[in-house]
Amino acid sequence: MPPVWNRKDLLGIADLGRDEIELILNTAESMREVGERPIKKVPTLRGKTVMNLFFEASTRTRSSFEIAEKRLSADNLNFSTAGSSLEKGESLIDTAMNLQAMAPDLVVIRHKHAGVPHMLARRLKAGVVNAGDGAHEHPTQALLDAFTIRQKKGRIAGLKVAIVGDIEHSRVVRSNIHLLTRLGAQVTVAAPRTLMPVEIGRMGVRVAHDLADAIAGADVVMMLRIQLERGARVAFPSVREYFNLFGLTVERLKRAKPDVIIMHPGPMNRGVEISSEVADGPYSVILDQVTNGVAVRMAVLYLCSGAHLEAS
Amino acid sequence: MPPVWNRKDLLGIADLGRDEIELILNTAESMREVGERPIKKVPTLRGKTVMNLFFEASTRTRSSFEIAEKRLSADNLNFSTAGSSLEKGESLIDTAMNLQAMAPDLVVIRHKHAGVPHMLARRLKAGVVNAGDGAHEHPTQALLDAFTIRQKKGRIAGLKVAIVGDIEHSRVVRSNIHLLTRLGAQVTVAAPRTLMPVEIGRMGVRVAHDLADAIAGADVVMMLRIQLERGARVAFPSVREYFNLFGLTVERLKRAKPDVIIMHPGPMNRGVEISSEVADGPYSVILDQVTNGVAVRMAVLYLCSGAHLEAS
Amino acid sequence: MPPVWNRKDLLGIADLGRDEIELILNTAESMREVGERPIKKVPTLRGKTVMNLFFEASTRTRSSFEIAEKRLSADNLNFSTAGSSLEKGESLIDTAMNLQAMAPDLVVIRHKHAGVPHMLARRLKAGVVNAGDGAHEHPTQALLDAFTIRQKKGRIAGLKVAIVGDIEHSRVVRSNIHLLTRLGAQVTVAAPRTLMPVEIGRMGVRVAHDLADAIAGADVVMMLRIQLERGARVAFPSVREYFNLFGLTVERLKRAKPDVIIMHPGPMNRGVEISSEVADGPYSVILDQVTNGVAVRMAVLYLCSGAHLEAS
Repeated sequence: MPPVWNRKDLLGIADLGRDEIELILNTAESMREVGERPIKKVPTLRGKTVMNLFFEASTRTRSSFEIAEKRLSADNLNFSTAGSSLEKGESLIDTAMNLQAMAPDLVVIRHKHAGVPHMLARRLKAGVVNAGDGAHEHPTQALLDAFTIRQKKGRIAGLKVAIVGDIEHSRVVRSNIHLLTRLGAQVTVAAPRTLMPVEIGRMGVRVAHDLADAIAGADVVMMLRIQLERGARVAFPSVREYFNLFGLTVERLKRAKPDVIIMHPGPMNRGVEISSEVADGPYSVILDQVTNGVAVRMAVLYLCSGAHLEAS
Repeated sequence: MPPVWNRKDLLGIADLGRDEIELILNTAESMREVGERPIKKVPTLRGKTVMNLFFEASTRTRSSFEIAEKRLSADNLNFSTAGSSLEKGESLIDTAMNLQAMAPDLVVIRHKHAGVPHMLARRLKAGVVNAGDGAHEHPTQALLDAFTIRQKKGRIAGLKVAIVGDIEHSRVVRSNIHLLTRLGAQVTVAAPRTLMPVEIGRMGVRVAHDLADAIAGADVVMMLRIQLERGARVAFPSVREYFNLFGLTVERLKRAKPDVIIMHPGPMNRGVEISSEVADGPYSVILDQVTNGVAVRMAVLYLCSGAHLEAS
Repeated sequence: MPPVWNRKDLLGIADLGRDEIELILNTAESMREVGERPIKKVPTLRGKTVMNLFFEASTRTRSSFEIAEKRLSADNLNFSTAGSSLEKGESLIDTAMNLQAMAPDLVVIRHKHAGVPHMLARRLKAGVVNAGDGAHEHPTQALLDAFTIRQKKGRIAGLKVAIVGDIEHSRVVRSNIHLLTRLGAQVTVAAPRTLMPVEIGRMGVRVAHDLADAIAGADVVMMLRIQLERGARVAFPSVREYFNLFGLTVERLKRAKPDVIIMHPGPMNRGVEISSEVADGPYSVILDQVTNGVAVRMAVLYLCSGAHLEAS
């Protein structure tokens, strides 16, 4: 029987099978246990080199990967656009080929253009992990979301999941829809008309017309960040107006199931897409998502390194 | 008998007891010895994660902490404002809670606002070490200064210490006054009228009216940096004028004790608050301060990690 | 018999003897083998501290050194001008003396001014490795070039090497001329008149008047980067004109030996000094240079640390 995971890369959720997703989630369970030990370190990737190429600002994703790498005992290097040869006009491919020539085992990349991780993956011998490409995919975010839902609810199949906010520009929502529908959840999306792509229905989700409709009976409510810094403000009259129509409050949450959980990929705009009372309230699992992110990234790095094949 | 050190945080000197200060200094003695070995590394914090959050420019303090962390075998991560989610308008508390969710053991923070480390310490399970908060405190600097004085003079009690320069804006001077008076030194401060806070006398120090008065009979002269880049220049007519009145020269030093030592927290403005002849001269212990800084920070990280409790 | 390598610093090729160069290249052979293992790590510099001071933008050289340091198990720290005390007006010497006081074992420095590494080397107890100083020297680049030539050709003595491009501003070419002539190669240089220093002939090289003349019968063709970002554009009418006269194409390469190898220190300007067909073609060893760079830097760090003396 061939091993379930035979890939060197994790580029998106769209091309993953159900058994692959479940293998990652199960592997992440073991990794989570490492983060709870007094000595949070295993020798799994000792002597392996991981390069983190972040071409967009990031605190949590970058830190999460860095911590995951250190807990696996990998050697890691960090690159950003500033101070790199890209400033000298070198193409991304040439920079990548040069980094490749230094024999990294894994490359983690975030880039503003969709498809950049795929292009690298075709060229590089190293495994490539997509840490977010444009508005396309952010697979490790979807995996940590799924991990958190499974942890809190015991399952994913049959759950009603509402995803609310800037559906148009979110790579998080694309990866999540692929993953949650594949694992049997019923996904509803809601957004202002200007932030809702017309083709979204084809992804197998229900399109709701307002927040109340979207979260009625939901097991899980996932709020998306309004990217104020990327000019999302033009998509609706004012921040106050947005909050009035799509902001999640304790009052509105009453339409969801009594044991609903609230998720957000962060960073949050408090008072824009979510009230502080909800963000910090008892249903919120937002910080669990962050904790689980490290475990999920450890699992992904481990599997893409091929270490599981050597071990068996 | 309860252990002397029961804190998870080092936020300032003001709230430390004499026995706690002495425990840090004694622990730093052992750590200094590590820095003199061919292999400058102990496994004390192996598998522990330290996050360095520097929201102000710093070479020496940041490097000193980083080296201390690596000599203790900790895994460390570095953050600065640039490239972080703070750019996306996230609050410091949210950034911190997110970092916390990744389960760091210790957080080292420098911030331009007084009190930020205290706020974090209340919220975070991780130990918090203040690496400088506004004009408030810089406890590891005062500890390394005390360590250096004790190393050179054999004691602190009864010594005459003159602190000269920008008393108003210096977090170093506040931490030093707390520490030195608690350990029994007699502290005199001197500054131009515009850089001397009116309430300073209440801290138990003598206020001198000029440099000559301040350093007469001193065992230790500590010169402070004039923060030219922060607009300190408006506080006195010119740099030349400042040097004429408050700059430390070999000639002026003759009023101090013959075995006086000269200290400076760095970075120095040569020819502004101190002449190069003094800075590089035989009484200067300025580079010893830097060396001792690594040992003191190793001691602080060790104690705040609670590793001394596990060991006993 | 005294050991061949007795230096704490590698500042340039100009002052190295032939036996020293050969020792580095032979040591790099062993280091290259480490990079091919599944666990690419040796404990050689465990507990040693290496500081990387890059005061100019760099991806490949900085990464190459960082990877070399990690493969040797050294602890490393990275500094750049941004965020450092140099912003506060501190002199480079004071910054260096302060870093020195933290007891690093090795300092790797790149600086826009020629001679900065030499100044540091005189002042610091730590070993200093020049990672490029102004238009002066870039010794590890020349060493990795020599390593690559030896790897592909089996020898250096007697080979015909053509170096083409911006001879005037290149530190790479200076280091290479010293090294290749010392090891017995015949070096020819070619450049537009405006980028050819008049005194170059004194370095023992032949000056060619055009590209065709330079590469006729060459065993090795080394193309240099046109530093468009440093205003090299003023030295010739247009990029197209430069390519027409000095750009390396498959057609022009026919004048070289049939087994010629093509080198470039990177980052390349495709379509300016070299066509993509040549850069990615069968004669190109450009990515081998990058791979070998890690091995050569491991060798240099090892020798400058004095670890080879302790071992014997």
